[in-house]
Amino acid sequence: MPKVSDEAIQALIDNKTKPLGALGELEKIAFQVCRFQDTLTPTLSKPHMLVFAADHGLAESGISAYPKEVTGQMVLNFVQGGAAINSFCGQHQIALEVIDAGVDCEFEPSLPIRHFKVGRGTRNSLHAPAMTRDELEQCFDAARQLVLEKHKLGCNVIGFGEMGIGNTSSAALIEHYALNLPLHECVGRGTGLDSVGLDNKLDILQKVTAARGNLTDPTEILEQVGGYEIAMMTRAMLSAHELNMLVLVDGFIASSAALLACQINPSSRKAMIFCHQSEEPGHQHILSTLRANSVLKLNMRLGEGTGCALAYPLIESAVRFVNEMASFEDASVSNKND
Amino acid sequence: MPKVSDEAIQALIDNKTKPLGALGELEKIAFQVCRFQDTLTPTLSKPHMLVFAADHGLAESGISAYPKEVTGQMVLNFVQGGAAINSFCGQHQIALEVIDAGVDCEFEPSLPIRHFKVGRGTRNSLHAPAMTRDELEQCFDAARQLVLEKHKLGCNVIGFGEMGIGNTSSAALIEHYALNLPLHECVGRGTGLDSVGLDNKLDILQKVTAARGNLTDPTEILEQVGGYEIAMMTRAMLSAHELNMLVLVDGFIASSAALLACQINPSSRKAMIFCHQSEEPGHQHILSTLRANSVLKLNMRLGEGTGCALAYPLIESAVRFVNEMASFEDASVSNKND
Repeated sequence: MPKVSDEAIQALIDNKTKPLGALGELEKIAFQVCRFQDTLTPTLSKPHMLVFAADHGLAESGISAYPKEVTGQMVLNFVQGGAAINSFCGQHQIALEVIDAGVDCEFEPSLPIRHFKVGRGTRNSLHAPAMTRDELEQCFDAARQLVLEKHKLGCNVIGFGEMGIGNTSSAALIEHYALNLPLHECVGRGTGLDSVGLDNKLDILQKVTAARGNLTDPTEILEQVGGYEIAMMTRAMLSAHELNMLVLVDGFIASSAALLACQINPSSRKAMIFCHQSEEPGHQHILSTLRANSVLKLNMRLGEGTGCALAYPLIESAVRFVNEMASFEDASVSNKND
Repeated sequence: MPKVSDEAIQALIDNKTKPLGALGELEKIAFQVCRFQDTLTPTLSKPHMLVFAADHGLAESGISAYPKEVTGQMVLNFVQGGAAINSFCGQHQIALEVIDAGVDCEFEPSLPIRHFKVGRGTRNSLHAPAMTRDELEQCFDAARQLVLEKHKLGCNVIGFGEMGIGNTSSAALIEHYALNLPLHECVGRGTGLDSVGLDNKLDILQKVTAARGNLTDPTEILEQVGGYEIAMMTRAMLSAHELNMLVLVDGFIASSAALLACQINPSSRKAMIFCHQSEEPGHQHILSTLRANSVLKLNMRLGEGTGCALAYPLIESAVRFVNEMASFEDASVSNKND
């Protein structure tokens, strides 16, 4: 039994000194956070951003504008504080943690990286399942451990981002299977393919689906065409929901994980705030399916959790107005119907 | 002669460790701020939010869902810290100043309000010009003084917001005249009119245009159908541009002031960042005319400068990534063309 009714939450929002509904999307976020936390005094506590990095065997088939080495190089860039996500997390005091889920290089053990390397990149799904069942279980175990840790620190809101050359291909394949959509509706330019590159990517992904056959079960989809980072995000989102933590979902790739999480446990949708609508055409289908309207629409296509970090102050604003604004009665302001 | 070329600014942005263009709208804001400040190390300093409040004679003809008294009541709510804009300015350390441009009530002189009352509301433009030339000059003088003051404090970025029951009508009339658009394309539900109320508003505004005749000059438009708060915003935006201060434009009403400012001095557009696309249908025409893409699209219709305050952290993010992110060379990350 919830302590707070939907009606009480809506009345709290409606009685703030503003025209009915005038804060638009912020009011919807405020309602969702109050509902999820079952309270009229919502809070955001110790926000964390988890950025999961991994390589993809499929990248060797030439489906990205960037070479595979960039995954590891960008992990080092995160560690040195030089990436966009460092800047935006720093701005909003979001604790940033980078997870090596399966990058195809060896990192110094002393680096401030969470070492959960499951393998040096997945297998090329053109020729074999991307990962074994055992590897998938390793991903899930790491995800559970990471989220539980943050929960124990008093964190109640986690952003999910990723880095992995080739992972828009994995996300497109996941979307294709999970939503039963034609592949061409799921595939986009990623980090910047030209038209020839895009045609080639679609062609290769069609061969992958021919090789991997028909898939419907979310864990099977992850095994056959997923990535270590996507598998960890999927399970981490489910764990966060189980622990009553808000889940901030970044762009297309994080949303493919969110989609699988929602298929595994539809209730987990209640924890999720979709932060940025990606330029990838496939993203809109996922958002529509999950009845989500992203907080930001900034035409970005970066990943790394940047959409989450940039949307975070708006989620804070939603929480603040609920806690801080005067009601019509408090402020002796005439309401519309007076 | 600018110190920094467009090419140098674009190269700085393009060499950051991200795919080309991957930060979308943030890159456009970053370019604009660098260009306007003529620098490769942009800064935002001592941000201020000016909220101009005034009443409108036209409100007595029943064009708003709220009674006229709400303008003064909301000014007191701002002073007491209970409005949405208080919450969002507090969140982002934006100094908030409320200006009585012409509210139809007397405020205690001791209240922390800037007392620039030009009159107790404009005249009803159905029957007479909204203000005299002398009143318009008073508005302009107050605006110049306010902006110069902030400039002397070291402020280089100002947000412009407003409060005034009836002022979507004034903004719609301004848009109608300034863009030579049919009135029905400029008129919307304001703070929440129903369909009957909307038809009535359109009918009354058509009578105003019949009474006020043909207008093309921006100052004449302000005199005949403007508001004290809109006149002050128009001149304040021009002054801010002259003093090399960035101008953050809120929703529909602030944009009507920005439109007139751009007609008076087209260069002032370079200072302006449009923060939120309002639910008012007329707003999109203004944005298109000024080739502006608003930072946020949150379906809000509140005013008070709330769009500026909510967009401010994103403008900060644009400035931060330019100053903080590593280049491909700095970080030894392979670029697309390597």
